Amino acid sequence: MRAVVYKEPFRVAVEEVPDARMQDPTDVLIRVTSTCICGSDLHMYEGRTGAEPGIVFGHENMGVVEEVGPGVAKLQPGDRISLPFNVACGFCRNCEANRTGFCLTVNPGFGGGAYGYVAMGPYTGGQAEYLRVPFADFNALKLPSGDEHEADFAMLADIFPTGYHGSEMAQVGPGDTVAVYGAGPVGLMAAYSSLLRGAAKVFSVDRVPNRLNLAERIGAIPVNYDEVDAVQYITDQTNGDGTDKGIDAVGYQATVSGGGEEQPAIVLNSLVYTVRATGRIGTIGLYVPSDPGAPSEEAANGRLLFEIGKFFEKGLSMGTGQCNVKSYNRQLRDMIIAGRAEPSFVVSKELPLDEAPDAYERFDKREEGYSKIVLHPHAA
Amino acid sequence: MRAVVYKEPFRVAVEEVPDARMQDPTDVLIRVTSTCICGSDLHMYEGRTGAEPGIVFGHENMGVVEEVGPGVAKLQPGDRISLPFNVACGFCRNCEANRTGFCLTVNPGFGGGAYGYVAMGPYTGGQAEYLRVPFADFNALKLPSGDEHEADFAMLADIFPTGYHGSEMAQVGPGDTVAVYGAGPVGLMAAYSSLLRGAAKVFSVDRVPNRLNLAERIGAIPVNYDEVDAVQYITDQTNGDGTDKGIDAVGYQATVSGGGEEQPAIVLNSLVYTVRATGRIGTIGLYVPSDPGAPSEEAANGRLLFEIGKFFEKGLSMGTGQCNVKSYNRQLRDMIIAGRAEPSFVVSKELPLDEAPDAYERFDKREEGYSKIVLHPHAA
Amino acid sequence: MRAVVYKEPFRVAVEEVPDARMQDPTDVLIRVTSTCICGSDLHMYEGRTGAEPGIVFGHENMGVVEEVGPGVAKLQPGDRISLPFNVACGFCRNCEANRTGFCLTVNPGFGGGAYGYVAMGPYTGGQAEYLRVPFADFNALKLPSGDEHEADFAMLADIFPTGYHGSEMAQVGPGDTVAVYGAGPVGLMAAYSSLLRGAAKVFSVDRVPNRLNLAERIGAIPVNYDEVDAVQYITDQTNGDGTDKGIDAVGYQATVSGGGEEQPAIVLNSLVYTVRATGRIGTIGLYVPSDPGAPSEEAANGRLLFEIGKFFEKGLSMGTGQCNVKSYNRQLRDMIIAGRAEPSFVVSKELPLDEAPDAYERFDKREEGYSKIVLHPHAA
Amino acid sequence: MRAVVYKEPFRVAVEEVPDARMQDPTDVLIRVTSTCICGSDLHMYEGRTGAEPGIVFGHENMGVVEEVGPGVAKLQPGDRISLPFNVACGFCRNCEANRTGFCLTVNPGFGGGAYGYVAMGPYTGGQAEYLRVPFADFNALKLPSGDEHEADFAMLADIFPTGYHGSEMAQVGPGDTVAVYGAGPVGLMAAYSSLLRGAAKVFSVDRVPNRLNLAERIGAIPVNYDEVDAVQYITDQTNGDGTDKGIDAVGYQATVSGGGEEQPAIVLNSLVYTVRATGRIGTIGLYVPSDPGAPSEEAANGRLLFEIGKFFEKGLSMGTGQCNVKSYNRQLRDMIIAGRAEPSFVVSKELPLDEAPDAYERFDKREEGYSKIVLHPHAA
Repeated sequence: MRAVVYKEPFRVAVEEVPDARMQDPTDVLIRVTSTCICGSDLHMYEGRTGAEPGIVFGHENMGVVEEVGPGVAKLQPGDRISLPFNVACGFCRNCEANRTGFCLTVNPGFGGGAYGYVAMGPYTGGQAEYLRVPFADFNALKLPSGDEHEADFAMLADIFPTGYHGSEMAQVGPGDTVAVYGAGPVGLMAAYSSLLRGAAKVFSVDRVPNRLNLAERIGAIPVNYDEVDAVQYITDQTNGDGTDKGIDAVGYQATVSGGGEEQPAIVLNSLVYTVRATGRIGTIGLYVPSDPGAPSEEAANGRLLFEIGKFFEKGLSMGTGQCNVKSYNRQLRDMIIAGRAEPSFVVSKELPLDEAPDAYERFDKREEGYSKIVLHPHAA
Repeated sequence: MRAVVYKEPFRVAVEEVPDARMQDPTDVLIRVTSTCICGSDLHMYEGRTGAEPGIVFGHENMGVVEEVGPGVAKLQPGDRISLPFNVACGFCRNCEANRTGFCLTVNPGFGGGAYGYVAMGPYTGGQAEYLRVPFADFNALKLPSGDEHEADFAMLADIFPTGYHGSEMAQVGPGDTVAVYGAGPVGLMAAYSSLLRGAAKVFSVDRVPNRLNLAERIGAIPVNYDEVDAVQYITDQTNGDGTDKGIDAVGYQATVSGGGEEQPAIVLNSLVYTVRATGRIGTIGLYVPSDPGAPSEEAANGRLLFEIGKFFEKGLSMGTGQCNVKSYNRQLRDMIIAGRAEPSFVVSKELPLDEAPDAYERFDKREEGYSKIVLHPHAA
Repeated sequence: MRAVVYKEPFRVAVEEVPDARMQDPTDVLIRVTSTCICGSDLHMYEGRTGAEPGIVFGHENMGVVEEVGPGVAKLQPGDRISLPFNVACGFCRNCEANRTGFCLTVNPGFGGGAYGYVAMGPYTGGQAEYLRVPFADFNALKLPSGDEHEADFAMLADIFPTGYHGSEMAQVGPGDTVAVYGAGPVGLMAAYSSLLRGAAKVFSVDRVPNRLNLAERIGAIPVNYDEVDAVQYITDQTNGDGTDKGIDAVGYQATVSGGGEEQPAIVLNSLVYTVRATGRIGTIGLYVPSDPGAPSEEAANGRLLFEIGKFFEKGLSMGTGQCNVKSYNRQLRDMIIAGRAEPSFVVSKELPLDEAPDAYERFDKREEGYSKIVLHPHAA
Repeated sequence: MRAVVYKEPFRVAVEEVPDARMQDPTDVLIRVTSTCICGSDLHMYEGRTGAEPGIVFGHENMGVVEEVGPGVAKLQPGDRISLPFNVACGFCRNCEANRTGFCLTVNPGFGGGAYGYVAMGPYTGGQAEYLRVPFADFNALKLPSGDEHEADFAMLADIFPTGYHGSEMAQVGPGDTVAVYGAGPVGLMAAYSSLLRGAAKVFSVDRVPNRLNLAERIGAIPVNYDEVDAVQYITDQTNGDGTDKGIDAVGYQATVSGGGEEQPAIVLNSLVYTVRATGRIGTIGLYVPSDPGAPSEEAANGRLLFEIGKFFEKGLSMGTGQCNVKSYNRQLRDMIIAGRAEPSFVVSKELPLDEAPDAYERFDKREEGYSKIVLHPHAA
């Protein structure tokens, strides 16, 4: 079958690879109808991880069931399903607690598995014609048959639930004011989720005009931190109080205004000043325990200067970590079906598989129109 | 009236001061029957804060109502009451949300007020014969009349609720394993609260044998970090997983083993390694945005090197901040009355007011028998 | 001052009554700018309660502060405020637990007080020029000065929070399907609140076309139970499952289809069949322990034949009781200010005080255009 | 293999039946080491259900894995496991929401499956030498190997989690007062769970002296409703307020004092009067939609006269339904292992399988010493 294969830093190719195939009685095999390129794929693409050449990318997958193992009870060939990016078993202590992002079974010695990602277990990616789905009864979310809402549903594998996870960890509720740092696809989903949950005012902080335009379109208040001091601006817009809640959708690769140097803790610390006393912060932007490219040795080991004194004085709390997609994808799917959510507003391009190498290159350069790309491996 | 007055670093005196008196229609005045010396009083005592000479100490107060303002509906002279260390109004946004430790009314420009504490508003301390209680209907917790459980009830003003707050922020539940760093009075209350909530195994980490003995007496597992690597030991005792929950009852004055240098973030970062992925941390040990005596300039400004990379990877969450005593003191009082909690096990001495100067000195030197002192201002 | 006074069954009059005046240091006095007629006023109007002639009606009040007691800290003359229909003290056990609808202080021997309502304490109603507000710091919700959003804010005293309370007790969340029985003003607010919280599909069940039209206008699915079997219809529209959540906004005066006889338990029991197993029901429609006009002796004593066997088999849960307005009015106010909620869509008429007698008569007859009436006592 | 087989009303026999055997790749087979007789087995035993002769009883099972299907990942032969009485799939909407008692897969057309129980699906009971366990990865809870705590662990299949479920639905917390109606094995577990969660005062209401003695032994306050009016007594013991929380561990077969006639709603309605306004009720005692032996036609159809008027006026809430064992058994297991819970205090007899017929007879007659029986099918 054909798949997107990592060749070397800054180069992927579409090549023939061994067919995806059934391995366990609880597997299914799907024909991939949509699979997205994610910002986190770029970490590998840029060679900033230990990803070896040969790996097939793709953790935002959906498709139609082709083959069903004898230990599968829920699925039939022909079922259209969405797959959470997390591979999870469904029966370990963490899965039982709905923390499927930290499954103890699928990737022993490390919490959590994913398709097509370095260090996340032996699960081939879905930027390919076919995909093996382990523990299929647990991992698959059924979708209405047909091809309606395809692009919306494609957001269910990762970014819509991930954005929602930020709003959940921050406990965003009706009437809240919320500051979301980062208006890339995930940050937009966090702002969008906050609005769907009834937030009164959502601030979207970024410096890319395109992103800020999208934020405004969905009802958020755009804040360009190249133009204003974001903390001060948001404080002023909230009667001098700061927001009730905050979401970090940037992570450790945060840069100062003007697009200058990386300051890994700048967003986190800005949130400490943006959110009012007693507030809550949901951190979905990535922080890593090891980052060889970091600006300091401490940062390279995942230790950042954090405003803990202020954080404590204000009585703040913070939740972090990758999303447990299964905690949210069912309800978000139902909002899409009911016409009450349309997350595909972030999608900028839909392409056949063959255009993946070019799309990676442009996406990595942040070319306009390449902010969120959906691949259709079986497109004509 | 007579009161404990701060004179200069390392010296308090019992002196005549102006009588406590009614100021507002919603005040009451109490005759103080018990008032404790708190570890946080030592910050001022040691001259490490901006506390001016002349301040009357004492934020852990209880007593009997003497005088009642015309705007008070709940209280009568003769009522025995406990006062949360936080002074709160009952009607601001934060009080409405039960975050009375961050009252916006009683100490404008800063969240939260307290009796007898620098920068916590104009509320004279209770290490004195009498005490004015503002917003008395809201702040007072009624106790059974008489003098039964006096020492237990004296713990309701601060340390029992504060310890409980740690267990609440960490969401300790039945069957949980919990690591509590610090076995001073507050740490012991955190361990005790965790056990009262049904925790299966509670580890108490400290290096003072006396404290560890008390921890063991209440059913916790003592861990002496001068003798073992606490993280490793607890990991081994939890099947290599780490604990479900963690509580930081030490704060920024944490020291390395052997009682050596201060490493302000060592407890916080140890918890990141002690608690298993998906776990929760409750931080009740103090972190401050400004600490002139800190070992580094960054620390002096409340910025510490925090293991955020590991914290995120493990999907941890953390709650912080001073306790909202009113959220817990009613239920803890009822446990005391029912004989199901006896927090006075931490009390090492009960003394008349005149012995306060000597007690402060010995407490500051961590002399045995001076770990938790209750003063009785009207004792013969 | 002039006020709406209950004279006898089916008759109110606008008359001179003794001026509202300050009684306690914690009171304020307001000039009433808006006060609504509520469906529950009709219980008294129709003579179905023990309300004595002479009582001044009005529990949905807002206005501008005229006079401030010496024990009030938050309010100044000129402040525009909304008053929850519940009068509450702020410091009893129930108020502390945010159950202000069950305040133990303001109406001793019975849980909960209200303005202008029989058996709810000595608090004169606000369908008058002026109103005394007890425990004013606690009860008042500040509004932006001026007269913007007057009709929206008028909904904050009762029906918007009450509708929201139904959605809260039912734990309506994003993606949920919800059945709301009753599309009167409160039922519409329950449907509206469910939608604001992100519900995917909300069914509004009623038989009055006008109400159903309004329901449809806000995005709910109207279900006319004169035309279809509501349980069957909703079951069919939810893949045969039933809804995730249900709200009873009708109560004991429920009637069978066609507007026939009262069957006090018909809505409650319909919900047991409408909501799927594991679902939750929020009951805001009134049930009373004593109803002399009930169709049976058991019903007259508040005992109804309830489908407890089915309820248990399905593992349902139910919350009930009058709304604790203060739990919600701040956040709902902020949604109004931010333009994200506009509850005044239910208002059908705004009238001067003098037209109250006529309005009561027409409202009682369910005349079109008289479903939700706001009175302005100081209108020219 | 040998098993307890239902022959006719009031008679079971130990007979040879076809061996339990593997059916699906996700099954395991266990050698049953302990299996309990449950009060709900008596419903079938007495012929009050549609149970056909030939059914093998037993839904409270534990044992050691003998055989493992190829689709099972977690278990190995030799593993000692506890089985929740609910059979559940792990991937349906209800299982995902941790409502495993309402699994939609294992018993289509009806929510929820169980071993050895009429109408709960095709799952043979465990009062037998061997047992087939479907969806084994999901259903099995691993236990420490060996035979320590055997009787305690035997309580994990049903009654300990079921009692705990009552305390969870009632939201029992530290300091609460709780009324538990019923002090049979499940009621005792509810009282015990409430105490483990930190309740200040737990009242156990029953009329059987033996049960009341056990209640007292674990720290509850026994209330014999043959001797006192339970509602009045508990009200008096709670300052006239009533309890914060209530648990119904009796259900529809409730009888009036003196052991007289059945009054199916008497416990539920007593709780409405026992619990204070704003309180919560957890109902684990069974109510059924169809009971041919009921004292009235309405009761026969699951409709009971419920004090909804009072329930609403007091703002009460209620959760119901059979326990989702998996929500609690892991943490309760850990409390047993840590020595913090010892639920086997309710066990009155441990017997070999052959004595089951005699034990059923004596248990049905409520003979002393036969209140909770554990069978050991492989005992010598």
